Amino acid sequence: MERIKGYTYGQAMSSPVSLNDLELLKTTVLFTDDDVQHLKLAGEVLQDQTDEILDLWYGFVGSNAHLVHYFGNGSAPNAEYLTAVRARFNQWILDLCKKPYDQTWLNYQHEIGLRHHSIKKNKTDNVDSVPIIHYRYLVAFIFPITATIKGFLAKKNHDAQTIEKMYSAWFKAVTLTVVLWTHPYIKENEF
Amino acid sequence: MERIKGYTYGQAMSSPVSLNDLELLKTTVLFTDDDVQHLKLAGEVLQDQTDEILDLWYGFVGSNAHLVHYFGNGSAPNAEYLTAVRARFNQWILDLCKKPYDQTWLNYQHEIGLRHHSIKKNKTDNVDSVPIIHYRYLVAFIFPITATIKGFLAKKNHDAQTIEKMYSAWFKAVTLTVVLWTHPYIKENEF
Repeated sequence: MERIKGYTYGQAMSSPVSLNDLELLKTTVLFTDDDVQHLKLAGEVLQDQTDEILDLWYGFVGSNAHLVHYFGNGSAPNAEYLTAVRARFNQWILDLCKKPYDQTWLNYQHEIGLRHHSIKKNKTDNVDSVPIIHYRYLVAFIFPITATIKGFLAKKNHDAQTIEKMYSAWFKAVTLTVVLWTHPYIKENEF
Repeated sequence: MERIKGYTYGQAMSSPVSLNDLELLKTTVLFTDDDVQHLKLAGEVLQDQTDEILDLWYGFVGSNAHLVHYFGNGSAPNAEYLTAVRARFNQWILDLCKKPYDQTWLNYQHEIGLRHHSIKKNKTDNVDSVPIIHYRYLVAFIFPITATIKGFLAKKNHDAQTIEKMYSAWFKAVTLTVVLWTHPYIKENEF
């Protein structure tokens, strides 16, 4: 597989969120071993569909000026930046489904958060773009990133109950990761 | 109807989020007039089931020490506080479905956020409890508050497509309100 530019999984600094905090968050989104299994299955179902998924998500971002805004600097979006992020976004889909949610995973979720926040935005790709993705859209994206996946989960002839379980596991996993990604935006001691 | 203690809808201070920001957030969660209609229908479906819904949600909170923690002060939860919040939570279900998302609604979402945050926590009910509900659980709650509603939406003999539409509208609305509730936790200029 071609190396993904800026994909530093396994090399990120330690997350400020502990594994114990993560366990309590998993409990709060009702995340169980059954979800781990259904995310693995979702990974198999989605792995040859990621280009279509990203076409859909990028189409949505591209058709909304208030969203594509974050890929530019007041004028046209930076195509190179869009492409570089897309490759990592593709890998994120697979990692969300297949990787164990251990310290390494936790650390990389924090790294992704930093890259949305002014602390690290634009640095990975060395681009000239607006300095931060505003917090509100990270949480708002839970809906489109979740709702749009169902059609793709349904494309490999699984029964309705299995699709529903994969979808539910995906929803939990997306919610969990958005909590982790938003850590840099939260006032001290309030996370 | 009995007056709900601390339910100051229509009297809250102005939200720092503008109606224009709200419109862009609605666009981001794909919220349309069709969702408004299906939320109204959801409100009719749910209005005589709110006690059962709150029993379920309170049962979940009550069975998790890391959640019930926020209703006490290091020891047993404050029963009076739990009861007062429950009455407002009940009203929130109805308001989410039935109220127009206008300036008054926007202002009250901010008031709810302040009451989770140290700025106003415990003040409405004049109770002695921990000073803040940590941010992470507000976002994490998007999952249980959404997933558990589907069974209640399905109880009034609507067809599967209508139930799915009510559910989707509810998911969008919950995501939207959680974005608004978390404003007090976000660093300046990063919301």
